[in-house]
Amino acid sequence: MNNNYTIFKEKMSKIADINFATSVLNWDQEVNLPPNAAKIRSKQLATLSGLAHEQFTNNEMGDLLEDLSAKNGLSERERANVTEAKKTYIKYKKKPNAFVVKLSESVSKAYFAWHKAKESNDFSIFEPALNKLVDLKLEEAELIGFDDHPYDALLDEFEPNAKTKDLDVLFKDVKNQLVDFVQILAKQQQVEDKWLYYNYDKDKQWNFGIDLLKQMGYDFNSGRQDLSPHPFTTSFGASDVRVTTRINENDFNEMTWSCIHEGGHALYEQGLLIEDYGLPTGNAISLGIHESQSRLWENNVGRSLAYWKANYHNLQNLFGENLKGISVEDFYKSINKVQPSLIRTNADELTYHFHILIRYEIEKELIEGNIAVGELPEVWNAKYKDYLNIEVPDHAQGVLQDIHWSHGAFGYFPTYSLGSFYAVQFFDKAKQDIPGLESQIEQGNLLELLAWLRTNIHQYGKMYSADELCKKVTGKSLDFSHFMDYAKNKYAGIYNL
Amino acid sequence: MNNNYTIFKEKMSKIADINFATSVLNWDQEVNLPPNAAKIRSKQLATLSGLAHEQFTNNEMGDLLEDLSAKNGLSERERANVTEAKKTYIKYKKKPNAFVVKLSESVSKAYFAWHKAKESNDFSIFEPALNKLVDLKLEEAELIGFDDHPYDALLDEFEPNAKTKDLDVLFKDVKNQLVDFVQILAKQQQVEDKWLYYNYDKDKQWNFGIDLLKQMGYDFNSGRQDLSPHPFTTSFGASDVRVTTRINENDFNEMTWSCIHEGGHALYEQGLLIEDYGLPTGNAISLGIHESQSRLWENNVGRSLAYWKANYHNLQNLFGENLKGISVEDFYKSINKVQPSLIRTNADELTYHFHILIRYEIEKELIEGNIAVGELPEVWNAKYKDYLNIEVPDHAQGVLQDIHWSHGAFGYFPTYSLGSFYAVQFFDKAKQDIPGLESQIEQGNLLELLAWLRTNIHQYGKMYSADELCKKVTGKSLDFSHFMDYAKNKYAGIYNL
Repeated sequence: MNNNYTIFKEKMSKIADINFATSVLNWDQEVNLPPNAAKIRSKQLATLSGLAHEQFTNNEMGDLLEDLSAKNGLSERERANVTEAKKTYIKYKKKPNAFVVKLSESVSKAYFAWHKAKESNDFSIFEPALNKLVDLKLEEAELIGFDDHPYDALLDEFEPNAKTKDLDVLFKDVKNQLVDFVQILAKQQQVEDKWLYYNYDKDKQWNFGIDLLKQMGYDFNSGRQDLSPHPFTTSFGASDVRVTTRINENDFNEMTWSCIHEGGHALYEQGLLIEDYGLPTGNAISLGIHESQSRLWENNVGRSLAYWKANYHNLQNLFGENLKGISVEDFYKSINKVQPSLIRTNADELTYHFHILIRYEIEKELIEGNIAVGELPEVWNAKYKDYLNIEVPDHAQGVLQDIHWSHGAFGYFPTYSLGSFYAVQFFDKAKQDIPGLESQIEQGNLLELLAWLRTNIHQYGKMYSADELCKKVTGKSLDFSHFMDYAKNKYAGIYNL
Repeated sequence: MNNNYTIFKEKMSKIADINFATSVLNWDQEVNLPPNAAKIRSKQLATLSGLAHEQFTNNEMGDLLEDLSAKNGLSERERANVTEAKKTYIKYKKKPNAFVVKLSESVSKAYFAWHKAKESNDFSIFEPALNKLVDLKLEEAELIGFDDHPYDALLDEFEPNAKTKDLDVLFKDVKNQLVDFVQILAKQQQVEDKWLYYNYDKDKQWNFGIDLLKQMGYDFNSGRQDLSPHPFTTSFGASDVRVTTRINENDFNEMTWSCIHEGGHALYEQGLLIEDYGLPTGNAISLGIHESQSRLWENNVGRSLAYWKANYHNLQNLFGENLKGISVEDFYKSINKVQPSLIRTNADELTYHFHILIRYEIEKELIEGNIAVGELPEVWNAKYKDYLNIEVPDHAQGVLQDIHWSHGAFGYFPTYSLGSFYAVQFFDKAKQDIPGLESQIEQGNLLELLAWLRTNIHQYGKMYSADELCKKVTGKSLDFSHFMDYAKNKYAGIYNL
């Protein structure tokens, strides 16, 4: 019927092929790459990025979008695809191809520099590459343009439509309400969690993680799990969505939470419609919404008492010696211990947001030019002292702990907090909509919850913006009070407030 | 100095990026792909093939090659690159982009159909896809053009400049001389090899294989080994050359020979010059020369008594029970037992060529239109009866055993025999050039041999044709008498002729 829409769809699908090929190369880089291959792989990735960019910004695409924008007779879904693609087109057009290739090359180099710096605990190895990336990201912000703050232009890549001024309000709430609350908890008697650090056999942990993923409804016919130093989820299309995890034999937390967390991301990707492959409606809305899915599974489901009522028996069967005499309630408390810590990915679900707050403040100041890359270690350590009352012993566990800046991903971190806050608001609604959800979870039946997420969130892809979706699902925009109410209620029980 | 040569080099390098990305997707398909991902992966591969083809055949490349061909002042190596690239350009120009994409899609589909057909032992599942591929390959031969025989056009993809009429002569020699010789051996007392089929622990085999690769000089910093159903070598550039193997706990042969064989291929790829990445001189000459490297290591080194004098001690340490009381001489005889068998990849180094002879005859007849795809199982079984005196029990072990036809790779099989014959001729020369080579091998020192191969073969890439290289290294063209002399000499000892 509408021939140009078909051509548009095919072009988008072809671009997706290139982008997913890039993802395969990235996945392989994380999971399999031999040491000497880094340089060549960077170049291969840069070439593919350049090709995808070329295909998205050529005149044929411009003409198609022009024509389709003016056309009647498109369905709501088709209209959303044209509108979204046009936004991307306009944005990409502002970035010359040479810039895209240069950025991709610099990112690859910075990744390897970061890796080496972290290994050697030497920030100076990373510094020149990071300096270059900050310059390039500033250049990018200028190319894209912004109304209020250059950071808005960078945020937009990860959380479309998000604004620095709104995040300032949100993180002010975090600072005022959450910091206070954690101080109250710190004065209570601390929960015991020593059994989480006994020896947990690697293979048994692996198998336990696989079972948790299956229980969530993760489809192993359309994905697989592997090991990597930094757990992540990657999609090569909804029928091939892979997760990775890591295992620490002396810390039960690492595998468990990364497994459930990445599983939550993967369920979102597996729930996108394969028939919309390559189209905005076949892609996730934003990283914040993506993170709402991983956090909902990790925290609202995975760190609940109901969840462990279903799974603790199996866990005790596997690790009887470690958990002998520990009741499920004690276990539940132990996995929810609130304690300021060094490493973001290992943080409890409250102090986690202080880690994000710190990164948010640093990124803003970096982009504003108020601090230089060379000052990062010092600023980092001071903020950890200030917000978490923690001394950072070395840069590997400090400013070098996260991969994100090595990807040039400034504006990414705030989406982690957004995700946790969206998660609670969505989960509150799911509880209203699904009678007996808690007792389903207690029985290990998570599939009705998954179906609710598929129906209310996954299937739409980018048909709505994050804010539109949040309103559609919960009746209002993101509201931090959901998270604070959840936190107060949950931790009052655990800390006998 | 020569600006256009620099531009040409960059363009070739970019095309190589796309092609190596394709290789990563292919490797991942063999090693990691979840079942539901097959369809999307086919499409992604087809898109990349199309892009590489577009980049090689656009006007800019045509103009560059035109200009460089007419130019003086290029070095011999640069000249070879321009000449080779122009040949490829002219060939590619004959294939419309739509044809390339269609072929790539059909190949992916055929691969999965073959896989399913083999699993279900049902040729009819593969037949329609194979029919389609034969038609496409005939179309390709017409598009490319040929003087004598359409099969020449297909051969050229794998063995540039090879001609059907020369292969007819070669395989006539195989038929006349080798078939007779194997019949003589069959009348002798048979060697014992039962210990090769005792239980060999999977993990120990894996570790033993890794050690063999290291001993050969395979660089694990520029590669890795994984498991896959059909062992193969793949390169993503000389700094990332990967091998796969398979392990059968009840057959010592499978892992061992595939490991050494793929290791030989990988050494060639790792020995190409990284600074010639993407250029003809940075690529292997032909599959025949490639196979000469794998066969030289597998047969001339790996199946020699000297090699096992170096490695038998370790093997006995690992599998003492299986090899108790078996002398290295008995072991050597057992791994060289000549016995007609069903499966090409498990064949001894003499009857191996009957498997190739059969495939060569079938492919020629298929391309000539003398037999139809539907008749393949019957023709296959008759030829196995005729040449090897073997009844084929089912298609999975018969006509469906090899992956190649599912890739549309008609003209590929003959290169296996060419490789074995080149291998002997090269190895004869290496023995002349390296004093004491045999005693080096006996001591497990294989690095001087590797250096000889690097200097005389690997470093040149496509600077010479297969025939030119053979003449340069050995003083004459491929001469089957080298192989027959080697065979007669080796097996006279083993079979007490």
